Order: sequence, then structure tokens, then C-alpha cells
Amino acid sequence: MWEAERPIAAVILAAGKGTRMKSQRHKVLHEIGGKPMIEHLLDQVDRLGAERTVVIVGEGREQVEARLGTRVSYAVQDQQLGTGHAVMQAKGALDGFEGDVLVMFGDVPFVRAETMMGMLKRLHGEDAPAVVVLGFKPYDPLQYGRVIARDGRITKMVEFKDATDEERSCPLCNSGLMAVRSDMLFKLLGEIDNENAQGEFYLPDVVNVAIASDIPTAVTVTSDPDEVAGINSRAELADAERRFQQAARAKAMAEGATLVAPETVFFSHDTVLGQDVLVEPNVVFGPGVTVADNVIIHAFSHLEGALLKEHVQIGPYARLRPGAVLEEGSKIGNFVEMKNAVLGEGAKANHLTYLGDATVGANANIGAGTITCNYDGYFKHKTVIGPGAFIGSNSALIAPVKIGADAIVAAGSAVSRDVSDGELRMVRAEQLVKPGWADRFHDAMKKKKEQERKDG
Amino acid sequence: MWEAERPIAAVILAAGKGTRMKSQRHKVLHEIGGKPMIEHLLDQVDRLGAERTVVIVGEGREQVEARLGTRVSYAVQDQQLGTGHAVMQAKGALDGFEGDVLVMFGDVPFVRAETMMGMLKRLHGEDAPAVVVLGFKPYDPLQYGRVIARDGRITKMVEFKDATDEERSCPLCNSGLMAVRSDMLFKLLGEIDNENAQGEFYLPDVVNVAIASDIPTAVTVTSDPDEVAGINSRAELADAERRFQQAARAKAMAEGATLVAPETVFFSHDTVLGQDVLVEPNVVFGPGVTVADNVIIHAFSHLEGALLKEHVQIGPYARLRPGAVLEEGSKIGNFVEMKNAVLGEGAKANHLTYLGDATVGANANIGAGTITCNYDGYFKHKTVIGPGAFIGSNSALIAPVKIGADAIVAAGSAVSRDVSDGELRMVRAEQLVKPGWADRFHDAMKKKKEQERKDG
Amino acid sequence: MWEAERPIAAVILAAGKGTRMKSQRHKVLHEIGGKPMIEHLLDQVDRLGAERTVVIVGEGREQVEARLGTRVSYAVQDQQLGTGHAVMQAKGALDGFEGDVLVMFGDVPFVRAETMMGMLKRLHGEDAPAVVVLGFKPYDPLQYGRVIARDGRITKMVEFKDATDEERSCPLCNSGLMAVRSDMLFKLLGEIDNENAQGEFYLPDVVNVAIASDIPTAVTVTSDPDEVAGINSRAELADAERRFQQAARAKAMAEGATLVAPETVFFSHDTVLGQDVLVEPNVVFGPGVTVADNVIIHAFSHLEGALLKEHVQIGPYARLRPGAVLEEGSKIGNFVEMKNAVLGEGAKANHLTYLGDATVGANANIGAGTITCNYDGYFKHKTVIGPGAFIGSNSALIAPVKIGADAIVAAGSAVSRDVSDGELRMVRAEQLVKPGWADRFHDAMKKKKEQERKDG
Repeated sequence: MWEAERPIAAVILAAGKGTRMKSQRHKVLHEIGGKPMIEHLLDQVDRLGAERTVVIVGEGREQVEARLGTRVSYAVQDQQLGTGHAVMQAKGALDGFEGDVLVMFGDVPFVRAETMMGMLKRLHGEDAPAVVVLGFKPYDPLQYGRVIARDGRITKMVEFKDATDEERSCPLCNSGLMAVRSDMLFKLLGEIDNENAQGEFYLPDVVNVAIASDIPTAVTVTSDPDEVAGINSRAELADAERRFQQAARAKAMAEGATLVAPETVFFSHDTVLGQDVLVEPNVVFGPGVTVADNVIIHAFSHLEGALLKEHVQIGPYARLRPGAVLEEGSKIGNFVEMKNAVLGEGAKANHLTYLGDATVGANANIGAGTITCNYDGYFKHKTVIGPGAFIGSNSALIAPVKIGADAIVAAGSAVSRDVSDGELRMVRAEQLVKPGWADRFHDAMKKKKEQERKDG
Repeated sequence: MWEAERPIAAVILAAGKGTRMKSQRHKVLHEIGGKPMIEHLLDQVDRLGAERTVVIVGEGREQVEARLGTRVSYAVQDQQLGTGHAVMQAKGALDGFEGDVLVMFGDVPFVRAETMMGMLKRLHGEDAPAVVVLGFKPYDPLQYGRVIARDGRITKMVEFKDATDEERSCPLCNSGLMAVRSDMLFKLLGEIDNENAQGEFYLPDVVNVAIASDIPTAVTVTSDPDEVAGINSRAELADAERRFQQAARAKAMAEGATLVAPETVFFSHDTVLGQDVLVEPNVVFGPGVTVADNVIIHAFSHLEGALLKEHVQIGPYARLRPGAVLEEGSKIGNFVEMKNAVLGEGAKANHLTYLGDATVGANANIGAGTITCNYDGYFKHKTVIGPGAFIGSNSALIAPVKIGADAIVAAGSAVSRDVSDGELRMVRAEQLVKPGWADRFHDAMKKKKEQERKDG
Repeated sequence: MWEAERPIAAVILAAGKGTRMKSQRHKVLHEIGGKPMIEHLLDQVDRLGAERTVVIVGEGREQVEARLGTRVSYAVQDQQLGTGHAVMQAKGALDGFEGDVLVMFGDVPFVRAETMMGMLKRLHGEDAPAVVVLGFKPYDPLQYGRVIARDGRITKMVEFKDATDEERSCPLCNSGLMAVRSDMLFKLLGEIDNENAQGEFYLPDVVNVAIASDIPTAVTVTSDPDEVAGINSRAELADAERRFQQAARAKAMAEGATLVAPETVFFSHDTVLGQDVLVEPNVVFGPGVTVADNVIIHAFSHLEGALLKEHVQIGPYARLRPGAVLEEGSKIGNFVEMKNAVLGEGAKANHLTYLGDATVGANANIGAGTITCNYDGYFKHKTVIGPGAFIGSNSALIAPVKIGADAIVAAGSAVSRDVSDGELRMVRAEQLVKPGWADRFHDAMKKKKEQERKDG
């Protein structure tokens, strides 16, 4: 367990317009692994045990607040006057706070708590710097600002466009993330100006201000440049998703799951897979899925909010929706949907079935084409099927309805009243036989077709 | 809008046998993004405003003509005597034409109109060359013929096998494409010979003939070697498809769609996606799909000839076939097929349903397992469902049939006569109850199984 | 046909624990292309015509023996005392055998018979070496043991950790595979010791023992390092699967199939595809599928144990299970499952259907939502549908049952008795009409909802 030197506050910038996303949705709410990107960051902040977390919001703030609620506090940046200006807005929210402040970005979601800890520890290390910058060494340094440092101490922060050739040849770039002692943060921010081409207050300038005043600063470097990749477009979002998925797949395999074609399996941020789980190609895990050992998930399955116990088999083409619970050894086949339903031990629903708001007893057999009619247009109702029951194919179970233990529902029945244990229920009209009728129909239709062709 | 200097004619070679495709289908009719490769090229030719387009056909010409019809004119090359010989066959079709002639290949489908324009413009540029060759610089020059040029003027065209080491070290290769002044084309072609190992008339020789006669020639160079990649095998076809898909995915994301896993989404040549469309993994777009803003397409969906209006949600496992129209806010769930059907505003068909030749009114609810019985083995018939209607699960609507506004069809009903507004229709036999029957059946069957086991 | 110089025996090591797989399943039984990895190797050994094949088993031997049965003989290594010790266990099983012995590994499954032949031939080549080692040149030599050789003759086998810098700079690595003359094998093995850090008997030491005794040895080198890649984790298993699939896709395309998106098509070890087969994205072939020429397989289809004849079309979302036979020109549409069933020439089952244990005659039309009720909870029964029959939508055919030629089953019927040729069978209750009932229901329900809202 990590123990911080001093209380921690996190300031997360999320006031940018995100124009390149071309979206009505706020940029930091776009999802990776089924979770808004800013929440990936917040989960890491939680691991630090931050005392206060302030999100700086601007346009679209109502979306952010609706999603994050009271998990964080908010400060508003009404005008886009630069990253330094954005952090200044946190002043009120940090009133009375004494400790270390991490400044991060809602669209840089993959920073690990370990990296944050490294920055915070450095604040309390040699020279006791007032500001620690997180540097990184990108595969291609492009146009990133540079951190000019010697022995881990910064001598200059420089934007790419203002850099000399020698400075540009420095591989250490500025991620934008910072840890700052709270007593220095707003003091330094108060000294930066907006005398530049954009007329904006830049956060990295606090470092230059500190250097000018001989206040010690330092840089820590992440070994993984992907960790500080920002997301500014749908293509970068897709890249981030790809990295998330690759990590999730590697983890699942290392823990003992077989992914026949890992690149076709999509996990959610919270998927849990047991050992000796076999996942065929093309399987999508939505949020909230837990899979026990020795489960087989056939191709083209889609799971969300489901619990699969040992020796379960599903698919291909199984769709499990929230509230699906599959007890040990139960089986869901192709084109079957389960929602808010429990399938008992050893029970089976193999084909073309909808089980909604239902409980199926152990070893029951649900025939092909069975539908639980759980909705009357206004309310949802429950279907309860007893252990050992046999539901004949193409049956409709009109909820609320109860089928007893070992009961049989004859194929094609629409059952609207409870069936007792061991009882047979059949809802079927007489077999009306019309010999020769089909032959006469075929003849008439063929003539009609022929006539149409002539008229045509 | 582009304005050509002179009238334009396009000659497209499509008489090759395409042996390496191992196909009964003509090579140029193999599809990329759901469209025959030669049509990708013709669409670019259309952007030039070509006055005449002549396709040189040979074996399999009937397939090409059946597909392209009167969009182009045709010339036949009966014998495979080389690319120069192929172009000669266009003489009749170009009779009386005065202007610029582009020579291209039906199996080199990705040449952009801008590149063609560059070639045509060069014809009217410095030195007024009679022939302009399109050169390219491949990633790996392999065995391509080289264009030896100085200051954009060609000094020699040379096949790889005849080239000196110095010539081979030249990175500029011959794409085969040419623009030629019409008054020179057949004159130059008339002077080439077939005195080579294959005994064929080679088109590039017109350049050498021109050079020998001091007629100016020139080369333009495409910056994208993929543009002139030829397709000679299924593997090269798959490569071309991959490049097409990558471009289509990048465009969709740049325009504001989220593709969770871009590499698993397959577009058609004419797919239109709005902004803030979310596409989950594994979605296939066939031809003719238009998707408005704020639509969600869940995993494993397959769309063709469908129109999705704002705030529609479909899938997972939705299959939309030609004529599917989803009005604003309507919803199609899993294992549901729509064909030639309109789903009204806010209407829903969530599970295991077939809607064919149907109109569904606003806010109607189509229960799980509903089937529109639109076909009697000879003719298709229509189903009309009124607004606010509720179709109980597992119902069969036997077309032609009309369900009134706010009407209810009871679960499991096969409805063969119209239902009025506000009416309940139930087609269901009596519930036949046989207490204890199932228990006796189980006993008998278990005994039979046991007996079989003993009998072995 | 290959003719060996002398009888061949194969010794395959499969006694390792496979800890890194984190699996209850024996490592060599994990599947690639739907076949246990060790069987990939055994299939190549079969091509050699090996007289004896001995698998060395240890922990989990019962799994290996249950799967491979009498195809091979077994020797048990009870204690994990090294690879040399493992081979020693084959002594009994090779009693009386005179010829050449190949030593291979159950978790190195992709060695080709041609490579094995090369090793065996070398045994009978220059110098008549007693031992031939298979060397390889990995992309990254990592920590592999080196084969120090001059002119194909080995001078030293050295583990990476014991190697000098000069030896480490040698690119030739030891795959572990060996061919040894049977008269020398156990003699050399008897001379190796376990005086090393692990206290194990190492197989490569037989080479050093031979060299020390001036017995000639040799090395052959595979040109494909992937051939000798070992599989020790799920990630390496996934890599092997990926290589298998890439090869299978390339082969299918070379033979004239179009794979629109090859990387999304998954083959089994025994899939057979004809010419001009079109496979859309996302198709999974399980074992036992044969597809004739001119078949179209739409996206999201899953096939296993199925035979598709010419001009068949299936999918999207077709699921063919073992015993599915599709006669010429027949068609299976979306969300349709077939199992142990024959679909006659030109017959169709286009939507949401289950055909199990059934025979469908030529040109029959199976309506949407048709279910063959083949299972009564104890036994499976057959459905026979005659040629030209028309099964109306949402019908249940309760097997055993026979539908005659050209017969018609009305939509929504549950048919429990045979239908004669040309007959119409309708099983449908009266249409019960309740005018205004639905309106009253809507009113009541809306009031109830309102009340709940107030109470809630």
C-alpha cells in the first residue's frame, strides 16, 4: 500500500472544446473499454488516495457533471485563455488545501498511478523541488515542447517552435503533467503572462518562472510514451482503444485463458475471466461480465452484465444482457438472448430463444424458438420455470406465469396460466386437413403468375 | 470544377485472361468495397468528363458488357498480341475523335482523377509532349520497367530484363498508364513491332518510337505508388480491399464517427455515416446504406440498402436488407431482420423478428419472435401495423393484413384477418391441462432409455 | 513418394508440465486450427512412414493417451530429470528397432516432413554422422543455445549462458530436434551426465559426447525459423494459431477463393474450399467443412461438419452444424441453424429457423421462424419434408413427422401428424375479436403507471 508524504490534490483539465472530435459529446466522456476516458484517469487518482480532485470544466460542463456527479469537485473556466489560466480556476476549490497538487488532463487518460507516485515522491526528494514535470521520449518527437534538463533538474522548458536546433535535438519532451507544491502553485501561476502569439497563459511557463527565481524544479521520465498520449480525434481514440484491448488480451492470456484470435476479442474495463476459459474468434464483452473457470464462449457472442459459472458453454451467437446468470454447467446456444434471467445448473436453451425476467430451474430444457413474453407494453412480468421442466419448441410463456417442476409444455403452445408440477400443458387447435387444397392452390397461383407475365 | 484543355477519351484495357485469379468471373468485375474494380476507375474517368470511354475486351467480354452496358463503348481484341495491339483495337471506336487519349487498365482501379488530370495537363505544358507516361516509385522496385528521364523528359523506356545495372538503379518505374495526343496515338502504334521474346506489341514502345523521331515525351510521377497497383490474384485483390477499407475508416472517423475497432468495420463504396455515429466492433456495410447523426450500431450488425435516421439504435446482430427505413428514434434489436420495411418513429422490434414488406407505425412495439408472413410461395404481400400497436410475442402476421392503431395482438396469435384500431385480437386454442401426464411420460421414457441401454 | 534409407522411429517428448499455460489441459493437447498441436506433428510424421512413434508422457499422461489412443506407443517419464532422461525412457519401446530415430517435441508442432526428411537424409550423407541436429536462425537469437559448426560438421553445442562472446555471435541456434542412428542413441545417452546447475540430463549433450569420441555429427538448417517455434504460453499458442491461419488464407486465395477480409476468416485444419467461393468478412470454419465451387458465404457465418455443394448461398448469420448437407443451389439465410439435416436442391430456409434431424426436398420453401421439434427430452426424431412443400412461417413440425410433396403447412401451425402430398394442413384457433378491448387496456395501464409514479 502506497503512503503519500503529504495530502494530495488532483487538478484535471477538461475545459477544451475538442473540436477535432467533431462530436456533441464532451471529449473526456468518449469511452475506452466501455468507460469514459476521464474515469480511467480518475481510477488511477483513486489509487493515490487523493484528498481533493478538481475537474476544470468549460463548454459541455453539464455533461461532465452529469456523468461524474459528486465523485469530484468542479471549477469552471469560462474563457479559453490557456492551460495556465485553466489551472488558476482551481484556486477556490483548493482553498485551505496544503500538500501536493498533480495537474493532469482529462484527454490523457492512461497515466498510471505508479507514474503519478513517482512525480509526487520526486517532490520530496533531492533539492525538494517545487515543481516536477513528467517528461517522455516519444517514438517520433514531432513538434512537442522540450524539457531541457541536466541531472534531472530542469534548465528550460521550450516550445518546439521557439527551440534552437540543439534544443530540438533533445529527445526529452514535455507531457504537460506536473506535480507542484500547493504553496507554490498559485504563486507561480500568478507570475506567468500571456505575451505570446496565441495570447494564452501556458502552464509550462510556471517552470520557467520558478527557474528564473532559482526555485528548484525537476523532471521524472516515463518509460512508456503511450502512457501520456493525448486523444484529440476519433482516430486517436481508436488508437487508445487498440492499446487498451492489446493490454487486456495479453493479461487474459497470461492468466490462463485461450483466445483463439486475440485481435478479434474485445474486452471491457472490468471483464473478469477465469482459467481455461476458451474464447473463440469475434467475441465482445460489454461492461460487467465475470466468467469462471472452464467456460467455453463460442464465436460471435456478445456479453454484458453477465455471470457465467464453471463449465458453462455459450454461443455461437449468444447474447447475454445485464442480469444474466448462468449456473454451473448450463448452456446457451445460437441466437439466444438472456436478460435479467437465471439459467439453472445444467439447464439448456439451445436455439432462437428469448429469456427475459425469468428463472429457469436446474436441468430444464428450453426448446427452440421459446419466448418469454415479459412485457405487456407497460410493465415487465416474471416467468418461473421449475427444475426438470421441458418447454416444447416455439412456445410462448406469457408472464407472469409459473411452470412447475418436471412439467411439459407442448410445442407451439402459448401458455397464459400456471402449469403444475408434472403436468402437461398443450395449447393447440385441431389439425385441419384439406386434401388436395395445396395442389389446387399451386395450380391457381401458377396460372396467375403466367397471366401476369403475359400482361406484364 | 476541372476544365480540360481539349476533349478527352479514355481507353481501358480489359482483355487479359486473368489466369492467376483462378476465376470464372472476369478479372475486372471482381469487387472492391462492393463495386467491380473497373467501375472504381470509370467513376474517376467520369470526374474528368471524358467524351468517349472505350473498353478493350477479349475473353469473357459478355460479362463485362452485361455489367457496364452502354456506360462505355467496346472494342474487341480477339488475340492476345500485347498491350500495344490491344490499344490499336480502339481505332474504330475513336474514329473522328480529336483530343487527348488516356490509356489505362481495368485491373489498375485506384488511379485518382487528379492524377489523370496531371497527365493531361502535362500534355499541354512545356515542350507540348505527344506522350505523357505516369511513373511511380514503388516501395520495392522488383522487376518493373524503368522510365529513364531527365528534367521530366523521357530518354528511354526499358524493360527490367533489358536494363543495365545503372538503369536498374533508377527508382522511377513505369505504371503503364499514358496520355497521348489523339493525332499521334495510332501513328506511333503503327510504328512499333513485335520483335521480342514474347512476339508481342508492347505499348511502352510508342515512347521509344517517339523519342527516336525526336517527338517530345514527358513523365509525371504519382506520389502514391499504391494508386497504380495492379490486381492479378486474389491476394492482391484482398490487399486492394484492405487499402480501400483503411481509407474509408479514416474518412468516417475524421468526419466524426466513433469506430471502436476500425479494423473490424467494413464499408461499401457508397456508405454515408453522420456525426456521432457509434459503430461497435464487427459491423458490415453492404451497398446503399445511409446513417444519420447520433445513431448507435451495435456489434455484429449487417446493413444493406438501409436508411437510418437520427437517434436510431440497432443490434447487436441486426440485419437490415434493402428497403429498410428506420425512422427517428426507432430501435431494432438482436436477431432481427428487416427487408423492404419502414419502422416508424420510436417503434421497436427488439428480438428474433422478421419484418418483410411491412410498415410499422410510430411507437408500435413488435414482440419477440414476430414474423410477417409476406410470401405465399408465389407473391409477396404487405403488412401494415398502425401507430401504437402492440404485437404480442411469437405472433405470425399473415399478409396481406392490417393491424390498426393502438391495437393489440395477443402473444402466439397467427393473424390472418385485419385488426381494427383499439381492438384485441387473440388466436389461441384452449389451454388443455393433463395433470400428472408429464410425470408418467418421464417415467415411461426413462424406462425406454434404460431398456435401450440394456439391449445395447 | 519419399523412400527412406532405413526404418524410421519418432520419439516425441510430451512429459513437460507446461506450467506457463496455466491450464488443466495437457499442453500438447491445446489446439491450433481445431486440432491438438501434437497431432499437427504426428500428421507430418505419418508422411515419413515412421515404423514406430513413441510419445514420452508424464503428468497428465491419461489425457494424452485418451486422445491419441493406439496411434502411437507411450513411454513414461515419472520424474522431470531433463530432456536426455526423457528420451532414455523410450528404450523399451524401441527395443529391437534398427534404423534412424527422430527426436522431436510435442510443443514444437509445425516441423514439416520435408525438414525431417532432410535430417534423415543427412544421416546417410557425407561422413555418415551418427547424430544430426536441426539448427535454425531466429529473427532474434535471444538466449538460445548455439550450434558451433564448420562446413556442416558440429564442433560444439553450447548453452547460451555458458557461451563465450564469440560463440554468442554465432547466429545458428539449436532447435533441440535431432536425428540419431538407433545403434548410437542409447549408447550416447548413457554417457551424458547431470552435473550442471539444474541437475538434469540434457539431450544436446549427446552431441558433445559424440564429438569427444570422434563420432561424426552434422547440422542441417531450416530456412523457416517459425517451423521450430515452441509453444509455452497462451500468447505463443495464439501466435501459432495466427501463423496457421495466415497460411490457410493464403492457400485458399491462391486456389481461387475470394476472401474479402482474409484476416477475419478462420479456417480449420481440414477446411476444403472450391474455386470462386466468396467468403465475406467474419466467417468461422470449424472442423469437417467442404465447400464446392461458386458458393457464397455471407458475413458472420459459422460452419462445422458441413457439406456445401455448387451455387449454394448461406448467411449472413448462418450456423451449420455437423451433418448439414446443402444440395446444389440451396440457400440458408440469417439466424438459421442446421444440424444433421439435408437441404434439397434449390430449397430455401431464409430466416430464423432450426432444421435438426431433417430432410428437406428439392425446391421446398421453409418459412421464417420454422422449428423442427426433434427432441422430446429423451430421444431425437426425424422430420421429412417433401419436394416443393411450403412450410408457412412460425410453424412447429413435431417429429417424427412427414410433410408430403407440394404440401402446404399454414403459418403458425404446430403439426403433429403427417401431411399428405398436395394437402393443406392448418392448425389454428378461431380469430377471437374484442373490439375496443385494447383501448380500454391502454387506459387502465396508463392510469396504473400514473398511480405508481405518484406512489413511487
